[in-house]
Amino acid sequence: MNNAKEIGKLTKEAWYELAKMPTAKKNDFLIALHDALIRDAPYILEENEKDITAGREKGLTSALLDRLRLTDERIKGMAAGVKDIVALPDPVGKVDGMKKMPNGLLIGTKRAPLGSILIIYEARPNVTVDAFALCFKSGNATILKGGSEALNSNRALIKIIKDTLGSCSINKNIVSFVDTPDRSVVEELLKSNEYIDVVIPRGGEGLIRYVSSTASMPVIKHYKGVCHTYVDEKADLKSALSIAVNAKVQRPGVCNAMETILVQKDVAGKFLPQLKDAMDKEDVELRGCEASRAILQGISAATEDDWYTEYLDLILAVRVVDGLDQAIDHINTYGSHHSDSIITEDYERAMRFLDEVDSAAVYVNASTRFTDGAEFGLGAEIGISTDKIHARGPMGLEELTCAKWIIFGNGQIRE
Amino acid sequence: MNNAKEIGKLTKEAWYELAKMPTAKKNDFLIALHDALIRDAPYILEENEKDITAGREKGLTSALLDRLRLTDERIKGMAAGVKDIVALPDPVGKVDGMKKMPNGLLIGTKRAPLGSILIIYEARPNVTVDAFALCFKSGNATILKGGSEALNSNRALIKIIKDTLGSCSINKNIVSFVDTPDRSVVEELLKSNEYIDVVIPRGGEGLIRYVSSTASMPVIKHYKGVCHTYVDEKADLKSALSIAVNAKVQRPGVCNAMETILVQKDVAGKFLPQLKDAMDKEDVELRGCEASRAILQGISAATEDDWYTEYLDLILAVRVVDGLDQAIDHINTYGSHHSDSIITEDYERAMRFLDEVDSAAVYVNASTRFTDGAEFGLGAEIGISTDKIHARGPMGLEELTCAKWIIFGNGQIRE
Repeated sequence: MNNAKEIGKLTKEAWYELAKMPTAKKNDFLIALHDALIRDAPYILEENEKDITAGREKGLTSALLDRLRLTDERIKGMAAGVKDIVALPDPVGKVDGMKKMPNGLLIGTKRAPLGSILIIYEARPNVTVDAFALCFKSGNATILKGGSEALNSNRALIKIIKDTLGSCSINKNIVSFVDTPDRSVVEELLKSNEYIDVVIPRGGEGLIRYVSSTASMPVIKHYKGVCHTYVDEKADLKSALSIAVNAKVQRPGVCNAMETILVQKDVAGKFLPQLKDAMDKEDVELRGCEASRAILQGISAATEDDWYTEYLDLILAVRVVDGLDQAIDHINTYGSHHSDSIITEDYERAMRFLDEVDSAAVYVNASTRFTDGAEFGLGAEIGISTDKIHARGPMGLEELTCAKWIIFGNGQIRE
Repeated sequence: MNNAKEIGKLTKEAWYELAKMPTAKKNDFLIALHDALIRDAPYILEENEKDITAGREKGLTSALLDRLRLTDERIKGMAAGVKDIVALPDPVGKVDGMKKMPNGLLIGTKRAPLGSILIIYEARPNVTVDAFALCFKSGNATILKGGSEALNSNRALIKIIKDTLGSCSINKNIVSFVDTPDRSVVEELLKSNEYIDVVIPRGGEGLIRYVSSTASMPVIKHYKGVCHTYVDEKADLKSALSIAVNAKVQRPGVCNAMETILVQKDVAGKFLPQLKDAMDKEDVELRGCEASRAILQGISAATEDDWYTEYLDLILAVRVVDGLDQAIDHINTYGSHHSDSIITEDYERAMRFLDEVDSAAVYVNASTRFTDGAEFGLGAEIGISTDKIHARGPMGLEELTCAKWIIFGNGQIRE
C-alpha cells in the first residue's frame, strides 16, 4: 500500500480497535508472533539473502552489510525480544494522581496509547519487529518505513506479522508498511497529521533534519550520541581508565559510546599517558587538543569539527580543560545532550555536573554505555530519545503512551 | 533585538544561569515584579491606550479590542497572578523513581527546565506577563512574540520585567521580546533549534499550522477546542440541561466551551425542546442535523463544516445520534481532542466513553468548562495543550520541565 492518505486513514481507523484491546489478547498475539518468526526463519533468511546480494552489488560497506544481515541466531533473538514484551506490564489504563476537588469532582489521569505512530528507520531489519511489537503492546498502530536496502527482509517480516494478526482475528491494518523507496510518499505521510499522531525518526543527521523540518505532527527524535567522560582532578584514575576504555571500546558503533574525553589539566600529565597505553591496546586512534598533544606526542590534532562528531568508531577526541566549568561548557556546547559522565570523588562537583550538564542521562563514576531501556529498568526500549519533551533518554512502553485527564462528576457546573 | 540568531544565542546563554537559580531568588524576583506592575500601572495603561487607539483606527472588532484592553483591575489581576506563582512549588530538582540496580548503580530521574522556550501568541497583552512568570519559575528562558496589535503594551510590560530583572541582579537576557512584525524573524527563530528547545504557539488555525510546519524544534500546540456534550439515553435530563447551558454560555469565547451537543435519539424528543427553551433565553443560536430539525422546527441546518467549527460564540451545533458508538465516532472524527463530556447514569457507557474518546480531558456528568490548570489542581497554567505528547491538557509548572536521568555509580562498566 503506497498511497499516503489511504495508509494513514486505514491505520488510524484500525487503531481505535487496538486502543481498547484487552492485555490478554495482545499477549496471545505476541506469543503467536514469536512462534511464527521461529517457524518461518528459513523464509526470512531466504528473503534477507536477496538484500545482502543486492547490497554487495551496490557496494555497501561491510559494517552496513553486517547490520542488514539476519542469521538463525539473530532471528531467535528477535523472536525472544517479542516474547519478553509479553511479561512487561501493559501501560494502557494505568490511573494516576486521582484527587477529590472541593467541588466534588474526582480528577486524575489515565494512560492511553498515543495513536498511530510512524517510525522511519534505516538498514536494520530487526527494528521492524522490535518497534512494531513495542507499539502493539502499548496499544499503538504502527506505520513502518524501513531503509530500502532491507526491503525484501522487511516485506517478509511484515508478511509474517500480518498473517499472524489474521490468524489471531486482529485487524491487519494496525500495521502498515511503506513498500516503496519513493520519497514523495514519506513526505505526504509527514504532512498527514490528521491520521498520524507522532513520528519517530531513528537515524543519522540527514534523516532527522528532513523529518523535523517536514513533519506537521509531533516528532520524537532518536538522534546521535556525542557522549563525554570528564576526568576531574579528584578522580580515582584507575576507575577513570577502566570506565573510559569501556565507554569507548565495549561497543563503539552505538549512540551511548564515548566520543570525547575531557581531562582536568592538573591530572592530565599523569592520566593521559595511561589512557594512550590502554587505547593503543584497543587500536583506538586519539585526536587531541594542543595541550593534550604536548603530553602525548605523535597523536593527531583534533579540529573544531571533531568535538561535534559521533565517530561510531575506534576514534577518541581528547581535550585538556581547566576544570569543571570548562568541562560543562564544552559538553553543553559540542555534545548532543545524550549521555555524559563525570569521574570524581568530589561531592560538590559531582552534584554540579548532574545539575548543569543538559543531557538526557548524566552519570557520576560510571560508563555512559548504560544508557539503555533494559539497564535503566524499563524492560525494553524503542530507542533513545534525544528530545527533551515527552520522553528523554530510553523510551519504553510507558513513553509510548500519554496521560489523558479523566473527570468523574455528578452534575458540576462552573460558577 | 530583532536578529533571530542573536536573540536565540543570548537567551540560551542566559538560560544556563537561570536553570541553576535557587528557588528563593526566583521568588524574590516574582514579588518584585508584582510590585513593579502595580507601581507602573499608569505607564502600562498609557502605552496600552496607544494600542487601543491604533486598533480602533484599524477597525478591530469590539471583541478583539476587549482582549487587547488593560484596565487597573486587569493589571492588578496580572500582578496577583505573578504573586500566586511564588506560592507554587518549584518543580526543578524533584527526584523521582530512584532505584538500586543489581549492578549497584542508583538510577532515577530529576526534573530540569526545558531550556529556552519561544512563545507565539496573539492579542492579549497579559499573556506576556503570565507566560514569562510561569517559564521563569520553572527555570526556563523565554522568547516572546506577541501580536502586533499589542506592541506598545508588550513593550511596556517587557521594559518593566527587564528593569526588575536588573534591580534583582538577574541576567536580563533570560527574557527576549521579538519587537517587530517582520515575519522573517519569526521564521528564522523557528529554524533555530540549536538555541530554542521548544516552541509553544497559542492561537488560531493559521498560526498553529504555520508554526507546526515551519519549526525545526519540538512544538507543543495550544489549539482550538471543539468540545462536545453527549446526552445518553440514561442521562438525568435536568442535570444534562444545566451542564449543557453552563458549557455553552458561561464563557463562550474560550476553548473549553461546548460547541456541539449530541443527543441519543430515544431522549431527543423530550430533551431537545427543553434545550431550545433554555438556549433561547441565553440568545444561543442552534444549528441542527436533520433529525433534530424534525423535532425543533425553525432552527437552521448544520452543515458538515459546522461539526468542525469552534464558534467561540453563542452558537451551538446539535446532532441526534443512534447511541454511544456513533457519539464516540462523531467526537473522534470532528472534534479537536480537547474536552468532551458524557451525561449518563449508566456505568458501562460512562467507562467506555472515558476509554474510547481520544481527548485531553474526558468527563462524566460535568461541564467541559472545568478544563483549566487551576480547576485541575495544577495551580496555574501556561495554556491547554492539544498535543498528546509531553503535556496533554492544562500545562502547569511541572509540564514546563522535563525528566533527565541521573545515575550514581562507583566505577561500573558494562559487560
